Amino acid sequence: MSSSRSSGKQHSGHSSSRPRGRKPSAGSQRNGGPCWLAGLHAVQAVLENPHRTILRILLTETAAQELETRMQRSLPPETERVDRTQLERFLGSDMVHQGAAVLVEPLEAVALEDALERSGPVLVLDQVTDPRNVGAILRSAAAFGAACVVMQDRHAPPESAVLAKAASGALEHVPVVRVVNLSRTIVQLKEAGLWAIGLDAGGSVLDGSALGGRRAALVLGAEGDGLRRLTRESCDEISGLNMAGGMESLNVSVAASVALYEVVRTVSTAG
Amino acid sequence: MSSSRSSGKQHSGHSSSRPRGRKPSAGSQRNGGPCWLAGLHAVQAVLENPHRTILRILLTETAAQELETRMQRSLPPETERVDRTQLERFLGSDMVHQGAAVLVEPLEAVALEDALERSGPVLVLDQVTDPRNVGAILRSAAAFGAACVVMQDRHAPPESAVLAKAASGALEHVPVVRVVNLSRTIVQLKEAGLWAIGLDAGGSVLDGSALGGRRAALVLGAEGDGLRRLTRESCDEISGLNMAGGMESLNVSVAASVALYEVVRTVSTAG
Repeated sequence: MSSSRSSGKQHSGHSSSRPRGRKPSAGSQRNGGPCWLAGLHAVQAVLENPHRTILRILLTETAAQELETRMQRSLPPETERVDRTQLERFLGSDMVHQGAAVLVEPLEAVALEDALERSGPVLVLDQVTDPRNVGAILRSAAAFGAACVVMQDRHAPPESAVLAKAASGALEHVPVVRVVNLSRTIVQLKEAGLWAIGLDAGGSVLDGSALGGRRAALVLGAEGDGLRRLTRESCDEISGLNMAGGMESLNVSVAASVALYEVVRTVSTAG
Repeated sequence: MSSSRSSGKQHSGHSSSRPRGRKPSAGSQRNGGPCWLAGLHAVQAVLENPHRTILRILLTETAAQELETRMQRSLPPETERVDRTQLERFLGSDMVHQGAAVLVEPLEAVALEDALERSGPVLVLDQVTDPRNVGAILRSAAAFGAACVVMQDRHAPPESAVLAKAASGALEHVPVVRVVNLSRTIVQLKEAGLWAIGLDAGGSVLDGSALGGRRAALVLGAEGDGLRRLTRESCDEISGLNMAGGMESLNVSVAASVALYEVVRTVSTAG
């Protein structure tokens, strides 16, 4: 029943092992152990991601039909048909699952250098811990064509059903880079030619057209706390959004999306 | 125990009546009956809103101290001290309450003409039903200085704890106009001099600077479904956001926020 569909990047020793509770192996500790992801968008994206190690696929009859229609191909043979009650035994009753859930290994860690080979701006999150916000940020990162999202490993949520649901499939598309030291990473980004903008009050107004074609790294802090001092000092500039109410009144995922828009808008207008 | 603190706009016959289950009176049916709102931001905003009829105030000792510090004044004498277990008996255990909850009557309906006396763009929601999205949209509406948010009464969520939590206090600040017929309202907005922009794919690119100082009404449909035909046809123009991934890949509250930003950004740059 616990079959692996990963096409290459498989966790060694995991492919035939059943998940045993929540204790992760040492290697995958950073991203947590196997976890359930649910919802049609998230499950479809998982099934279409060749880099995902899938341990179980649970679908109701309706969800299975819906996914086959959306994906225009047959589901993997190891798919298990369940009813909603069985699903909720695994997921709990508060999780919106739309009849679809998968048990997966967390994605492999992505190195910053590899992620930077993709085009687009980079988002850096300084202690944004709410999984729903991080999921929403991943979704906007995919929509606005960001290269990757960088988070400090110790202060970032692991992959989870809540995060994946908010990401609406984007968890499979946008590389997440988990680093130990955020200000050191900002220095690396600057060395790679990016212009590091700390989103915060007390600076200039964020203006994408002033970038003059430079690639941006947008650094966002947690709601309320904002950027930590070291993170702030590592940036090339501090800028806020041009708005009446002030940045601190925005949800952090909205602030990230609007900042991305401001940076991308200008690039696509210029190009 | 059930005391009313409304300073004027009181629901007649409600001020001394205990909430009796969920059955609302005929007059308040539109917005639902009394409901619990929770969380420090939401509760603070309720306590500071003179137009709110408050039936009960439940606070833990810690939350009470925090609110007194934030508001820099004493709490109303009818405040009840509770512990977290008591709070969760009222709210359920999934609600994030931060030790603070109030039982309130829904806000009085706001007429479109009154809401339009405020400055700023108008948001019109066509069947956006998720309370978390509507709450997030209210929060961004407050941050970007929107005049009001218009919703079709039959297809809009009532006030609720989830909506108010996502709005983070903005439910008390941004007028919500509930109408019966959305396309008729769009015509009214146009007659009042607003330029109605339907946010959707298949049109031009939304450009705030092209408004030339005209006040905008931004019309957004539900995720997936988009705008209904009649709503779409009532608009002056259909425009999408300038972005790589396409509007449909954005969360509706993010799309609303970015569109508001695009419209407000240009106004504040011009002014």
